[in-house]
Amino acid sequence: MHHLLETQQFDRDLLRSVFDLATKLENQRNDSLHGKILASLFYEPSTRTRFSFESAMMRLGGQVITAENANEVSSSVKGETLEDTIRVMNHYADAIVIRHPETGAAERAAAVSDVPVINAGDGAGQHPTQALLDLYTIERELGRLDDIHVVIVGDMRYYRAARSLSYLLGKFNNVTITGVTAPELRISDELREYLTEKNITYHETDVLPEAMKNADVIYQTRIQKERLSPEAYQRTKGQYVIDRSLADSMKDGGIIIHPLPRVGEITPEVDDSPHAVYFKQVGYGLTVRMALLSMLLGGKSVV
Amino acid sequence: MHHLLETQQFDRDLLRSVFDLATKLENQRNDSLHGKILASLFYEPSTRTRFSFESAMMRLGGQVITAENANEVSSSVKGETLEDTIRVMNHYADAIVIRHPETGAAERAAAVSDVPVINAGDGAGQHPTQALLDLYTIERELGRLDDIHVVIVGDMRYYRAARSLSYLLGKFNNVTITGVTAPELRISDELREYLTEKNITYHETDVLPEAMKNADVIYQTRIQKERLSPEAYQRTKGQYVIDRSLADSMKDGGIIIHPLPRVGEITPEVDDSPHAVYFKQVGYGLTVRMALLSMLLGGKSVV
Amino acid sequence: MHHLLETQQFDRDLLRSVFDLATKLENQRNDSLHGKILASLFYEPSTRTRFSFESAMMRLGGQVITAENANEVSSSVKGETLEDTIRVMNHYADAIVIRHPETGAAERAAAVSDVPVINAGDGAGQHPTQALLDLYTIERELGRLDDIHVVIVGDMRYYRAARSLSYLLGKFNNVTITGVTAPELRISDELREYLTEKNITYHETDVLPEAMKNADVIYQTRIQKERLSPEAYQRTKGQYVIDRSLADSMKDGGIIIHPLPRVGEITPEVDDSPHAVYFKQVGYGLTVRMALLSMLLGGKSVV
Repeated sequence: MHHLLETQQFDRDLLRSVFDLATKLENQRNDSLHGKILASLFYEPSTRTRFSFESAMMRLGGQVITAENANEVSSSVKGETLEDTIRVMNHYADAIVIRHPETGAAERAAAVSDVPVINAGDGAGQHPTQALLDLYTIERELGRLDDIHVVIVGDMRYYRAARSLSYLLGKFNNVTITGVTAPELRISDELREYLTEKNITYHETDVLPEAMKNADVIYQTRIQKERLSPEAYQRTKGQYVIDRSLADSMKDGGIIIHPLPRVGEITPEVDDSPHAVYFKQVGYGLTVRMALLSMLLGGKSVV
Repeated sequence: MHHLLETQQFDRDLLRSVFDLATKLENQRNDSLHGKILASLFYEPSTRTRFSFESAMMRLGGQVITAENANEVSSSVKGETLEDTIRVMNHYADAIVIRHPETGAAERAAAVSDVPVINAGDGAGQHPTQALLDLYTIERELGRLDDIHVVIVGDMRYYRAARSLSYLLGKFNNVTITGVTAPELRISDELREYLTEKNITYHETDVLPEAMKNADVIYQTRIQKERLSPEAYQRTKGQYVIDRSLADSMKDGGIIIHPLPRVGEITPEVDDSPHAVYFKQVGYGLTVRMALLSMLLGGKSVV
Repeated sequence: MHHLLETQQFDRDLLRSVFDLATKLENQRNDSLHGKILASLFYEPSTRTRFSFESAMMRLGGQVITAENANEVSSSVKGETLEDTIRVMNHYADAIVIRHPETGAAERAAAVSDVPVINAGDGAGQHPTQALLDLYTIERELGRLDDIHVVIVGDMRYYRAARSLSYLLGKFNNVTITGVTAPELRISDELREYLTEKNITYHETDVLPEAMKNADVIYQTRIQKERLSPEAYQRTKGQYVIDRSLADSMKDGGIIIHPLPRVGEITPEVDDSPHAVYFKQVGYGLTVRMALLSMLLGGKSVV
């Protein structure tokens, strides 16, 4: 197997290799992937994620062919299957980044692809590179991944990235996770069982200020309107906003991360707090993706 | 003249040069077009064709500027003529690939362009690079272009690519074409006369199994819904599906090609038949386009 | 400051540097920006302007990441602020070209950007690279920028480019501007005062033929339908069309420029008149943008 589909593919050793390479590639530009072509197939738009991969590819000297909105413009309109599209793309590209609204789409793509397929989000499924960059951010900022207390704010239930991160944290020792969410957005039984099995202590609360004081990491998330009833959304939306005074209440060295975009969950005055690392996180994401592309396209197997 | 507009531009010698160069470029990456820029102007979307040209350009070291949906985003919305757009593009690009819904659009573009214009499909007109790659696929797989029996399935009337291929086959000796189509999709008088003039034997039937047994090449096409009445479409759609048992009935060395995308005309179990070369064909198409770009941009005249 | 936001940033010395570099870069391709990445963020579509920047970047060896229609596809749909988008883009790109429907958007972007922001049009605000290329075209064709008579036809009021050009002309000596417009599209008091202050003589007329005879430069503009009542638009539209006989009435060496696209304001028979330089102008624009990118990305400050 040589695709990047889900965080379950990663053990501590592999994470180590990816993160070490990412650190080495920070601020680098080279021509190591000169002559290689990455295909960006975005069946739902995500300029941010697309640009991150494309910039990473270009910094390594590679080139990119792009379908900004593959859904509308590709032969999928004519009724072609995803499998056929991927078989065709195999002739054009040395790797394929795919974002797709259907869970399992990346896996289906990988099943028929000779070139590496990278899952950049498949519906309610996974978005593994986001989880990897979250984890890398934590390590770079805290200096460790064991012995940490992560507070996930807003949505433990539907937020793909928060869930994927939880899976990765399961590989480390003495990790505590606290979920600060409305009742509708609490952790699923499946994830709770996984955490128990991995010896992660899990707490639940709906009081943000208390949780912030003890956190090494605040993982703020965006409440997804479509997940809640209108009343629940109105009630929840404003409830877990991090403002400057909340940020200031954090202990020294504690960090606030966010997968972005934010739409009010963190107020702008927080941006220059020493705790705010959510924009720095974007840069970490770029280098993690450079490391992954380098490993996938340079011949080293990721899994 | 230095544009690529229609298959009529090609004689056997020129085809030989293109195909020999394509074979030489197979699996190659080089920097022969370093510093050159190709403009992709797609007035109707076609991710597949666009990616094929863009990947070909990049494999030769060139770069690409792209309008995925030129119709919506370009100054054509403001009422600019195609001619003005092309005159402007002449300053930005070293060659222009154009896909346009109107027949004759590529010719109009070429009339005002100093840089090479490549027709990537102009309405009911031509799609010459598709026909060239079809022909190249046949040669590579059969080892010859004379003495062949090509069966075109589904649509002899409206299918641009099938018609363009017929024109090219007219340049070879002892070629037989059999059209397997519904009555509504039979060959036009014009094409029939051309084939007669070129000494191509033309047969017509509506029975697929018999035709498959004797074919060197099965050219399967997609039935275009918009070409038929609803009743005729329903009747025709399922009638010429190639399944595995039909594929297995082909003689040794016989091949099935398809311009893709397919939407059911060839069932998935055919994909790993030794006769199925329609995905391999995509790769042949890439190298043919590399050869054409190389000739057009490297200074050699195609016509 | 190291952004390119408005023509006011330019004095005669800086214009000299840009224009000299542009002339040096004419027809050049080099690798001076190898490894650098330009982000094209177009919140309203403009294939022409986008391609001009992208081609300029590529001719200098750089690469480009593109959002053809940032409005629809970016996280702005999810409610992200422009400021956040720019902060994120700072990690992906070495410079950002932005076109945005809101006046002041480029300035807002620059305020939070560490990498250079280039304003490619912000609503009713500025489009400075267009004004620079207009001025460069005049200099290249007339050989001077002092002692010239510029006739601006069609719209002195709302046409962003004509207004920006007027501001730049204010830096030169013995400049006369004549506005040939319908009453609704006459110069604003603000611009008139500016011209007076800069010792530019300003005339006004609604008779085109007379004005053409005395012009060194005819700056033809497109009447923007949305600026006028339906009746005023109908009345105005056809009134200031330049046809061949009008073009022929110009004095030797006089030139006709136009920001393009045109939709009938200059008839096609004018295109091969020696006075017509509007397509050549596109090429001048490319080299001006190459010069600007080179200065912004090569470390030299533009302001």
